[in-house]
Amino acid sequence: MTKVALAFDLGGTELRGALVESGGHVIAHVSAPTMAIAGSEAVIGQIIALAGDLLTQHPQAKVAGIGVGAPGPLDPKAGIVIAPPTLAGWHDVPLIDILGKHFGLPVRLENDANAAALGEWRFGAGRGTGSMVFVTVSTGIGGGVVAEGHVYHGRRGLAAEIGHMTITGEGDRCFCGAVGCFEAVASGTALGRRATALTAPGDGSLLRRLSADGDISARHVVDAARAGDGRARTLIEAEANWLGIGFTNLLHLYSPDLIVMGGGLANGFDLLAPSIRAVVEQRAMPAYRDVPIVPAQLGNQAGLIGAASLILWEGEPGAPLAMAQDDENNNDTTKRAGAREASHG
Amino acid sequence: MTKVALAFDLGGTELRGALVESGGHVIAHVSAPTMAIAGSEAVIGQIIALAGDLLTQHPQAKVAGIGVGAPGPLDPKAGIVIAPPTLAGWHDVPLIDILGKHFGLPVRLENDANAAALGEWRFGAGRGTGSMVFVTVSTGIGGGVVAEGHVYHGRRGLAAEIGHMTITGEGDRCFCGAVGCFEAVASGTALGRRATALTAPGDGSLLRRLSADGDISARHVVDAARAGDGRARTLIEAEANWLGIGFTNLLHLYSPDLIVMGGGLANGFDLLAPSIRAVVEQRAMPAYRDVPIVPAQLGNQAGLIGAASLILWEGEPGAPLAMAQDDENNNDTTKRAGAREASHG
Repeated sequence: MTKVALAFDLGGTELRGALVESGGHVIAHVSAPTMAIAGSEAVIGQIIALAGDLLTQHPQAKVAGIGVGAPGPLDPKAGIVIAPPTLAGWHDVPLIDILGKHFGLPVRLENDANAAALGEWRFGAGRGTGSMVFVTVSTGIGGGVVAEGHVYHGRRGLAAEIGHMTITGEGDRCFCGAVGCFEAVASGTALGRRATALTAPGDGSLLRRLSADGDISARHVVDAARAGDGRARTLIEAEANWLGIGFTNLLHLYSPDLIVMGGGLANGFDLLAPSIRAVVEQRAMPAYRDVPIVPAQLGNQAGLIGAASLILWEGEPGAPLAMAQDDENNNDTTKRAGAREASHG
Repeated sequence: MTKVALAFDLGGTELRGALVESGGHVIAHVSAPTMAIAGSEAVIGQIIALAGDLLTQHPQAKVAGIGVGAPGPLDPKAGIVIAPPTLAGWHDVPLIDILGKHFGLPVRLENDANAAALGEWRFGAGRGTGSMVFVTVSTGIGGGVVAEGHVYHGRRGLAAEIGHMTITGEGDRCFCGAVGCFEAVASGTALGRRATALTAPGDGSLLRRLSADGDISARHVVDAARAGDGRARTLIEAEANWLGIGFTNLLHLYSPDLIVMGGGLANGFDLLAPSIRAVVEQRAMPAYRDVPIVPAQLGNQAGLIGAASLILWEGEPGAPLAMAQDDENNNDTTKRAGAREASHG
């Protein structure tokens, strides 16, 4: 059997595990609701149990190591989960040490957005590019930067906290306490909030009908806009404007070859893309205007595949990653993930 | 004689050249007004003439190569000056090829802000840090990022265009056409413009007296604030607020070990620093709040020393730079440049 990695994607809601082989193929997948309020020992116990399930399914697997994507802030080099807001009782947990001692295998840790960025870069929308900024737009906004074959880490692995980049002086206060964070105006949460404020329960609007007269989510706005609803289209325009301002900043700051947009709101990428591009072309300096902006391809598998890549393709910390090759496995992966149309340009 | 580099700092106003030895010491220095409207051939002729002057002064110099800092946009790897707004008639000029053929020496090219960042990182305020963001605040705002021993280049060397990061929806339109660029609200030009708008010729204010009733510059505001003028102090507070917002973004995006502020406005660093820090501590997420923000140490020699470093200490493009060592030469350099007090914290 080919070399495989155990990969985990540790979310505040769901803990997912997989066996990923060196072609990027997920050969087994398990998950469990994260015991997010039970503290780190309980969750690490879940990781160990899920690993057991995966290895029971594939007893012949030659496991090269364990890659874990976890919520930040975390220190990928020291292997420490610092203080994730979505996991109670995790404070400076030395996850690499703990799992390494338990399994006797190499363990690598990466922030979840960086892991997803790596997955997309190696096997998804970023295949073949030298540098890439991955932006995940859902409840919040996160990101990861791959440049010259490395995740761009910065001090303590804390770079690319793009959700808390100030882009305006207006809007609701961000949970972080500042006003004007990219996340506070452009996340799916912000879009849903604007839709909710624009309508009222029982007003008969499509937005309220889709939400059964409750709070409107970004998904409802996308669905209503797709059905041709005028108010939803206006909301999508405003959302694209904020995304365009933020993406323009990312072009000026990181000068990537490519921006990849993932997260829940990528479901509406085709609706958002024309206005995002118009804003970028209006605001970016000329040398940056032709950089493609495309939707993610790996959906919710990006983090798992990226976590596996920490073991399967990255060497020493800081060593350049091997570039993706267009072999059969890659093509399989792309098909499996259901590549969406990259409606940019 | 020790190994030296020929270094040039090609500005829109002044062309400066130096011989720099491997300890970072400038052993000879020449300059001329840039023939900025005469086209690239004339200016390249000036570079060749200045090189001749330097080599005449030091006929025994063993020149290892030529490092050039020039205005962007430029492509450091291809060695091409693309289209600098301050130099007429420069369009895709293959400067490395031209100088390499003329002198028969290795030539390296870097954007001027990146060259200054390298100089400060190797021999100035950034000595000994792993990663650093250099911000130059004067007529405009530019920057350079050194991370893990590399200049962070991005596609075509265009990363760290931090002056055109959008940080607000207000203020005067930037020359680039957008509203809310960091440069448009926080450059020395913006500070001078605000001071001019706040006062009137003949109003007897210290600001107008310092400017002989003409337009007020950032330097006048700094001088008036230092003299205790209330209006100037208020203007400095507002300036520090914009700088604090921009610097917080740089912390979140690049997570450097250090931010170094250079450029003309660094003359007022001691006045600006307390409010910059207060804004950072209010707006940055907790893990970023303790990053030092310090003034540049090399003044207008940073670019020349950085350009020399491309030859003297950097190997292949992309190879990590050697870290600075605290040898005697370094201490000499620091003294020579007149290290200012790093009033942060």
